[in-house]
Amino acid sequence: MRVDLNCDLGEGFSSDGEILKYITSANIACGYHAGDPLLMAKTVELAAAAGVAVGAHPGYPDLQGFGRRNMACSSDEVYHFILYQLGALAGIARAKGVRMVHVKPHGALYNQAAIDGELAMAVARAVKDFDPRLMLYGLARSELLRAGEEVGLTVAAEVFSDRAYRDDGTLVPRQEPGAVLAGADVAAQALDLVLRGKVRTVSGREIEVKADTICIHGDTSGALEAAREINKAFREHGITLISPGGIHRAQGKYKNNP
Amino acid sequence: MRVDLNCDLGEGFSSDGEILKYITSANIACGYHAGDPLLMAKTVELAAAAGVAVGAHPGYPDLQGFGRRNMACSSDEVYHFILYQLGALAGIARAKGVRMVHVKPHGALYNQAAIDGELAMAVARAVKDFDPRLMLYGLARSELLRAGEEVGLTVAAEVFSDRAYRDDGTLVPRQEPGAVLAGADVAAQALDLVLRGKVRTVSGREIEVKADTICIHGDTSGALEAAREINKAFREHGITLISPGGIHRAQGKYKNNP
Amino acid sequence: MRVDLNCDLGEGFSSDGEILKYITSANIACGYHAGDPLLMAKTVELAAAAGVAVGAHPGYPDLQGFGRRNMACSSDEVYHFILYQLGALAGIARAKGVRMVHVKPHGALYNQAAIDGELAMAVARAVKDFDPRLMLYGLARSELLRAGEEVGLTVAAEVFSDRAYRDDGTLVPRQEPGAVLAGADVAAQALDLVLRGKVRTVSGREIEVKADTICIHGDTSGALEAAREINKAFREHGITLISPGGIHRAQGKYKNNP
Amino acid sequence: MRVDLNCDLGEGFSSDGEILKYITSANIACGYHAGDPLLMAKTVELAAAAGVAVGAHPGYPDLQGFGRRNMACSSDEVYHFILYQLGALAGIARAKGVRMVHVKPHGALYNQAAIDGELAMAVARAVKDFDPRLMLYGLARSELLRAGEEVGLTVAAEVFSDRAYRDDGTLVPRQEPGAVLAGADVAAQALDLVLRGKVRTVSGREIEVKADTICIHGDTSGALEAAREINKAFREHGITLISPGGIHRAQGKYKNNP
Repeated sequence: MRVDLNCDLGEGFSSDGEILKYITSANIACGYHAGDPLLMAKTVELAAAAGVAVGAHPGYPDLQGFGRRNMACSSDEVYHFILYQLGALAGIARAKGVRMVHVKPHGALYNQAAIDGELAMAVARAVKDFDPRLMLYGLARSELLRAGEEVGLTVAAEVFSDRAYRDDGTLVPRQEPGAVLAGADVAAQALDLVLRGKVRTVSGREIEVKADTICIHGDTSGALEAAREINKAFREHGITLISPGGIHRAQGKYKNNP
Repeated sequence: MRVDLNCDLGEGFSSDGEILKYITSANIACGYHAGDPLLMAKTVELAAAAGVAVGAHPGYPDLQGFGRRNMACSSDEVYHFILYQLGALAGIARAKGVRMVHVKPHGALYNQAAIDGELAMAVARAVKDFDPRLMLYGLARSELLRAGEEVGLTVAAEVFSDRAYRDDGTLVPRQEPGAVLAGADVAAQALDLVLRGKVRTVSGREIEVKADTICIHGDTSGALEAAREINKAFREHGITLISPGGIHRAQGKYKNNP
Repeated sequence: MRVDLNCDLGEGFSSDGEILKYITSANIACGYHAGDPLLMAKTVELAAAAGVAVGAHPGYPDLQGFGRRNMACSSDEVYHFILYQLGALAGIARAKGVRMVHVKPHGALYNQAAIDGELAMAVARAVKDFDPRLMLYGLARSELLRAGEEVGLTVAAEVFSDRAYRDDGTLVPRQEPGAVLAGADVAAQALDLVLRGKVRTVSGREIEVKADTICIHGDTSGALEAAREINKAFREHGITLISPGGIHRAQGKYKNNP
Repeated sequence: MRVDLNCDLGEGFSSDGEILKYITSANIACGYHAGDPLLMAKTVELAAAAGVAVGAHPGYPDLQGFGRRNMACSSDEVYHFILYQLGALAGIARAKGVRMVHVKPHGALYNQAAIDGELAMAVARAVKDFDPRLMLYGLARSELLRAGEEVGLTVAAEVFSDRAYRDDGTLVPRQEPGAVLAGADVAAQALDLVLRGKVRTVSGREIEVKADTICIHGDTSGALEAAREINKAFREHGITLISPGGIHRAQGKYKNNP
């Protein structure tokens, strides 16, 4: 059994160095919703030094709203600002001798591309046209993954160990009761997702969800604790932590950029 | 005899399509002082269709001041935001099947890098580390060209046909009388620079100035007229218009991306 | 008969000085979708010198998209960034001895506030809480006008002389055939709106539309020509051009800030 | 004896609520170097609820560099973007029923206005033209204070209790050894400055420095600890904490907006 743990980094929180001990993929903000060239460079270096796969985390052009506001951009606009952000991070990574290996859209762009097929295609085509070797991370069972597959990209299905699921495979919205899991439930759901490819929904049913990569948060002490618990549980169950591109920790160190 | 004519494009002026008929290198704004992903894409396509060499025109992060305000950025900051901008334009160009072939800094960054050796090195190293095949355009006799040569880049010495020179090879500041040439003087100075490698300064002396590329403005009807005059004068004197990377008009059409 | 002619200014187009001859209200961009402090100051001075009413034209925080992209901002966000933009323009106007007298939202914010009652209330409350003497301009028959009246503001119903109407009083979308009027039709529809309070829709019916202010465009030569035609037609029909706040041209000169 | 303690707030650090217990003036970022309308509103409300004087903290238009990079802006540009920022904060404060009572420039703008008389006058005139009742905070003995007095503003001389002074009254640059004080030295220097109007410089001499307000930092646990120590030392020595505008804690609560 193997799985990837990914986390959004370079967004200005101070915990980046700590969370890198527990993940295999870093999604780095590209200046549109957060981040700037210097922070991007530092985060690339930190991730590479930790042996963690470096990926882009492009978002809407919305610093004020941290990329969390839905925006009505045309496909043409989205296609080109994805190219812009991928290029920007790749340029910085290249100068550090690091290869960018994956892309995960951020915030409102991630959520809209999960359900809007046309937007999903704009994202997928931008990734493909920039570099067809890049892997595309998106919500399991989403339009984004379908679009990625359609254009011929390798995709990674993302799941959430700290969020409750509905019967249709979507997440229970944050504002509803029971939407966010905590404590031992997080590691338990993570194990269910990886070992059995299943998750128990809020209605009590079990549904199948492919889990290539699990989203890890690192911006609170509770989130860090959950990341540690998941790492521990996976070690105990013999689950190998490895990025979809094959970057993994070997003998205590991740090997980056194989 | 051969020379390049370059112009700053993608800055939001409406004359881009017209000026492309008269130049061999396009310096495209990268979103920091002007431009955005969609405008960058359109400008890359226009330039490539016209057979004009596509280059980056990175500037200070200063949309409000159009990149014309001197800013005290550290070498580390400059190095990384150049990488960011080069990557962003290269990402867009790549998706159009166009190769970025040169870099010319914009505005205050251009002027400060002409006289500040440390800043010049930050710019030159960023260009080199991004792609050592890129050519670096800078003011003739400047620190920027020296830095470019030091790191092993091919450089192109830029001259101005519509600006008066001082005995030390610098330009007469715009606010001084006689700083800006007009009418027949522009084409005459352009010819002097290319045919004889010399320019007559405001004091009446002649000095040597290497001229690999001439800066053409395209944002006023007067500038467009001057561009036409220079083209005509060069044709009459058998001067070949060709970009430093070998992109040129052949039989009425430029050939891009050889 | 009396009516106001308003135009969006300070957005970086070069025609501002010319269009001021034909209007009675200037809506000035506040830096969020276009404009910056220096341009705002120049536009305030130009408008005041022309005797034209100075108003704010707040938009979404979206320079890249010129404020034309719908954005999902919370009421709380909208309320506060309207306050921010009103304050910013009022601060500049106050230093010039000019009083800001009206507010007209821009682009996507204008369109969304026309149909979304909650958003409309956020805009109206911000205007009211900033200064209850400010007049609010909005699309005739819109949620925005209803919200403005509900909070006790004086409102001005805006109509369009160059756009076709549907039976329900909304505009025919730009992309549909016949959506945009030209030539003599523009002045004719303007006269119908002001003299009879009616407009003939695309279906041929006549509907009632209150017309306190007509939107004038000034960014193309065709638009300038239309503005001249409307001025001429109104003069010939004895219609007085006057802003809702009473600022008007007297003996060849507008009187501002009465 | 009486003195003001001021702190920069609304810059995105999480300690704002805690530091408000120890200060009498809050300088609130206005969106140019940090902050946004929603954060400005929350900080105004927090400060007013704590009975702390609300002031503006305008900076250079430089989010990427947090306003710490020197920028070569014209006096005209500075004058207008100060007006813009003052207006923006005042607009938000007004809607909360809070009056803005002072202005302290931020970062590079503060430092450049301390030594550049022309820039200092641009800042002072903007504050005066916006509202002549506003107080201007600036470095003790600086050009900014001189300019403020020249235009007729009430000024407050700012001193630093955690920074070493040179014989000419300027601060020892941060990168030099001994530049930053810690532990008991901070409260001791604060007492010297307030009780005796003197400070011992790095050379061992004593110089006179007027101390109307002391700059307090709140972004690290060490800074918070120093703020507490200064409060304790001042209480023990009978020094009254009060803002220059007379806002002070009475019977355990500050009274704002008298």
